Amino acid sequence: MERGLYLLGYQTEAASGEERKFLREGFGAADLRELPLENLDALAAEVRELITKVVGENGGHLGSSLGSVELCVALLRKFNPLEDRIVFDVGHQSYPYKILSDRLDRFHTLRAQGGVSGFPRRAESPFDHFDTGHSSTSISAALGYAKARDLLGQKHHVVAVVGDAALINGLAFEALNHVKETQTRLIIVLNDNKHSISPRVGGFATMLARLSASTSYNKIKFAIKECCRALPKGDALEKALESIRDQIKTLVKPQNVFDELDINYWGPFDGHNIGEAEMIFDLAQRYDRPVLLHFSTVKGKGFPEAERNPTKYHQVAPRVEREIPKARTWSDAAAGVVEELAQADGRVVCLTAAMETGTRLENFRVRFPGRFFDVGIAESHMLTLAAGMAAGGLRPWVFIYSTFLQRAMDQLAHDIALQNLPVVLMVDRAGLVGADGETHQGLLDVSWGRAVPNVEIYAPTDEPSLRQITTHAANRQGPTLVRYPRGPLSDVLYTGREPLGPVLTRPGEEWLLVGHGVTVHTLLEARERAARAGGLPVPAVVDLRRLKPLDMDFIDEILKSYSTVVVAEESYLVGGVGEAIASRASETGAAVVVRRLGAPDLFVPHGSAAQQREFCGLTAERVLNCGMGLRAIHTA
Amino acid sequence: MERGLYLLGYQTEAASGEERKFLREGFGAADLRELPLENLDALAAEVRELITKVVGENGGHLGSSLGSVELCVALLRKFNPLEDRIVFDVGHQSYPYKILSDRLDRFHTLRAQGGVSGFPRRAESPFDHFDTGHSSTSISAALGYAKARDLLGQKHHVVAVVGDAALINGLAFEALNHVKETQTRLIIVLNDNKHSISPRVGGFATMLARLSASTSYNKIKFAIKECCRALPKGDALEKALESIRDQIKTLVKPQNVFDELDINYWGPFDGHNIGEAEMIFDLAQRYDRPVLLHFSTVKGKGFPEAERNPTKYHQVAPRVEREIPKARTWSDAAAGVVEELAQADGRVVCLTAAMETGTRLENFRVRFPGRFFDVGIAESHMLTLAAGMAAGGLRPWVFIYSTFLQRAMDQLAHDIALQNLPVVLMVDRAGLVGADGETHQGLLDVSWGRAVPNVEIYAPTDEPSLRQITTHAANRQGPTLVRYPRGPLSDVLYTGREPLGPVLTRPGEEWLLVGHGVTVHTLLEARERAARAGGLPVPAVVDLRRLKPLDMDFIDEILKSYSTVVVAEESYLVGGVGEAIASRASETGAAVVVRRLGAPDLFVPHGSAAQQREFCGLTAERVLNCGMGLRAIHTA
Repeated sequence: MERGLYLLGYQTEAASGEERKFLREGFGAADLRELPLENLDALAAEVRELITKVVGENGGHLGSSLGSVELCVALLRKFNPLEDRIVFDVGHQSYPYKILSDRLDRFHTLRAQGGVSGFPRRAESPFDHFDTGHSSTSISAALGYAKARDLLGQKHHVVAVVGDAALINGLAFEALNHVKETQTRLIIVLNDNKHSISPRVGGFATMLARLSASTSYNKIKFAIKECCRALPKGDALEKALESIRDQIKTLVKPQNVFDELDINYWGPFDGHNIGEAEMIFDLAQRYDRPVLLHFSTVKGKGFPEAERNPTKYHQVAPRVEREIPKARTWSDAAAGVVEELAQADGRVVCLTAAMETGTRLENFRVRFPGRFFDVGIAESHMLTLAAGMAAGGLRPWVFIYSTFLQRAMDQLAHDIALQNLPVVLMVDRAGLVGADGETHQGLLDVSWGRAVPNVEIYAPTDEPSLRQITTHAANRQGPTLVRYPRGPLSDVLYTGREPLGPVLTRPGEEWLLVGHGVTVHTLLEARERAARAGGLPVPAVVDLRRLKPLDMDFIDEILKSYSTVVVAEESYLVGGVGEAIASRASETGAAVVVRRLGAPDLFVPHGSAAQQREFCGLTAERVLNCGMGLRAIHTA
Repeated sequence: MERGLYLLGYQTEAASGEERKFLREGFGAADLRELPLENLDALAAEVRELITKVVGENGGHLGSSLGSVELCVALLRKFNPLEDRIVFDVGHQSYPYKILSDRLDRFHTLRAQGGVSGFPRRAESPFDHFDTGHSSTSISAALGYAKARDLLGQKHHVVAVVGDAALINGLAFEALNHVKETQTRLIIVLNDNKHSISPRVGGFATMLARLSASTSYNKIKFAIKECCRALPKGDALEKALESIRDQIKTLVKPQNVFDELDINYWGPFDGHNIGEAEMIFDLAQRYDRPVLLHFSTVKGKGFPEAERNPTKYHQVAPRVEREIPKARTWSDAAAGVVEELAQADGRVVCLTAAMETGTRLENFRVRFPGRFFDVGIAESHMLTLAAGMAAGGLRPWVFIYSTFLQRAMDQLAHDIALQNLPVVLMVDRAGLVGADGETHQGLLDVSWGRAVPNVEIYAPTDEPSLRQITTHAANRQGPTLVRYPRGPLSDVLYTGREPLGPVLTRPGEEWLLVGHGVTVHTLLEARERAARAGGLPVPAVVDLRRLKPLDMDFIDEILKSYSTVVVAEESYLVGGVGEAIASRASETGAAVVVRRLGAPDLFVPHGSAAQQREFCGLTAERVLNCGMGLRAIHTA
């Protein structure tokens, strides 16, 4: 990592904002439209410099945004971005768009609490037309916008801007299949940088590569160019375009999947040539049918290290995180134990959906290439594939972020749990995730997972408990979810010889703090502060470890033994384990007050994970407040 | 419906089991393999007769199964169905397979409690290799089986049998895209009957139709036929096939989406010609790459009414249900109110995913064709499309079965709820659904939906409350879920002028019964029985109506006013509304016992809905037992 970071720092030093010619305070979308074509490459360079600087400081998605600068410039100039609906897919590639659509002065707040979001947000700007963060939604959303336009008698354009990696997700395909049926105008801009987070996979990728190399399509490109060059102005334009349209229709025969789906394919074009992009957008606006514009771009463009190593520079950590010595993370530990299991058992296979790097499976892939499966951004397929593998006698381990598991809940229930198949889901980034914000929080896996029969759910608190849990999961004849957070491993609490179920981690009096996963450390901190401060009895602390099934004998016992129980979890309160414990108390008529701490019933915005814990009240302070409030009630 | 039903009855009378020549007691898969080719058409006719008879009596999926008889015969004869893995998609088309794989003698128990399931079930037979019910899982599961085979050093064949309608779902596409990457042997049998439940939609359908009409592929077909006719036996066979393979490779150039994805396409073939199918299967078994075999079949084959009207005969109701006068259903009422809303407001649009008939939207489609969208089996796309429509100013109403909403939960959270868009989800078939069984139960929508911020959830109890709720939803600036059950409308309880939140439907003493939706009627029955029988105080009954957000002031009030509260719901207990109410009691320290009734933490098997309510303890009897048990505790 070091050399790359050095370069990142170096570039930031070299080109400071003061030397900028175009991107000065107040430069907005209107100014952009006034700039002559010959200045745009210089402007693009300044946009890249700013992105590199801000991402170097705050962290964020570098490669995709560097690759989309010219496309964003052309989109903002050729469309009316307040009237036309430009819908970005995922949003990794939207930084240049944000900078150039009246958010230049705020862009240094990228991903900070209260600052510019790392993804398109309608509440942030009238230039953003659809909130996103998960992949492959843009074509569906844009189709919706297009039908709304038609039915409401409006005339504006609707544009979906989608990366090649997002196209292989089933959602995008369902939308592409439906395009023909809707019989409406729609412009799909395919920003093809040949990469997902990792290199893209599958037959579709090969098909796109074939297209990129195809000369028959170049013929069309030149035909369009020639016609555009000779374009008359005004009314005559319409007629000229009419004839172009027919010409294109004749030229394009069903030869690729887009044509097969009755979506006109134009391309490939150079996505770093602003003039060409503007010309194509001009033409596409006059076209009365759905059209897909295929642009080839370079991920990390303009930043040589990122061009050479696009996976590494897909996302960059904030400077402060990079400067501290790199601690071993939960992902490191999780990948490590599965490597050991794979070494011992040839049936162990690993699956991921374009999250190889994030879940630290690089080493697994190198050691066991035939047993490693990166399916691309295809979470649903991944889970059903794992179900088939398990039915066939393998032991599949699925590595997936909590937020992306949301995409595959039916596959968990219908394909894995129904048949009680031995699939282990390693649910990474569970809980509050920090700067990626609303769309990436891992707050639903507990509430959704708990309701699925046959599933066991665990939350390790340290590395020894992670090992215990994974050893159990490896031998279990049924599906197991193991949820662990983003970031460095927590302090070691256990010897690794404790039971798999709930553990009374610290004794105490009168009141009890119950948690799971990282939250247990917050509860221990609260207990320590109570012990130091005095005035309050020192609470006991229970680590649940297993969230499902709950050990009801144990729960009944604690509900009888304390007058107050506080359940805290980094998960939504609605449907959380707290509800299960609290309802058990009401069911048995136990004379106990159960308070619950967790994420409130809203989408938790971006900021640091610490700020988000503050926001959700998942702090030692808040735990102690619960105790004090209840103490008052009891004394009264 | 009448004429069709008459025919169904007539056919059943005409060909009784006693006249059967082949399908006699004990006829199994081994016998099938012994039959000479010339007897197979007669056998197929007997299979059709049996399917028609049993489905006419028990209800079930008629059209798809009638269309797949010959393919199932050929599959069972040419593959080793205990060793090779034949994975059916959905399972609608698996009845002939079940009849011919040692389940003939049990087939009359189809869909009855404890009887043969309407879908493939591994627990039912060693011939079934993957449980299913939802669409489009077969290619993923088969790929999983194929990789397991390779890694475990086995040699058997893996076959996915998939319908054309299932192919347009994103899950199937994700799997097709991944096939190339896995570099393994896999046979995909495409049973193309040109229909989903309704006629299929989208560009992919057009593409398949083009393929079916293509003569270039017929050339390949004849080439294969010629080669097969001249096949030598034994070792020489291998060599002959080697040359055929090369010939095919040369003949087939990337010309359709399958070839583009590097899956060899062979076809189209006649799916009702057993000899041809057997020959093709023979050849496919020798092929060392993934191959897709395209068979054209006729939905409803052999039953003229069903051939003419495949949508109507996709699924047939059980005889006893058909014989009672047709009552107005929840689906009728729901479709009706939305038609009225659409009449008054041009922004109202309706969406469904191949469920037009089931959700009774036929009339809406006829009245408002431009505002009706059947996206095919593409639930995820449907919800994101609706989000885009709502963002663009429309008022989309999505009609979806509860079980299929599981496929689109991320789209609900990430695309609709995050932006708080005014999309109404009409969640049909919520709760226990009867004969379709495990895979089709609507038991997760409450637990999963409750955890999603910004969502309001309602359960009407009668038609007036349905009208109130839909009127509210029509004007709300945010997402609303309205859940209602399968089957006839419930008795009218309300005037339609009650508040939208909880209603004390009947007064009572000491104990309170709380429910929502159909369950309220069970609670009222329990109350009546308590009043009649004496010995127990007469309980009050509360109808929650709004499941989210709960009216906490109301809840606090009732928790203070009764010593025992029983919450009953047709939904999973885990994550249900019962947990929310019970935890509120523990939080406030209310001196009340809260008991919860609902679906236990397992997959509820097929049977009648009444049997399933018995199974889950959602009966008046059980409610009264709760009261008696608690009474004992209180007196003690």
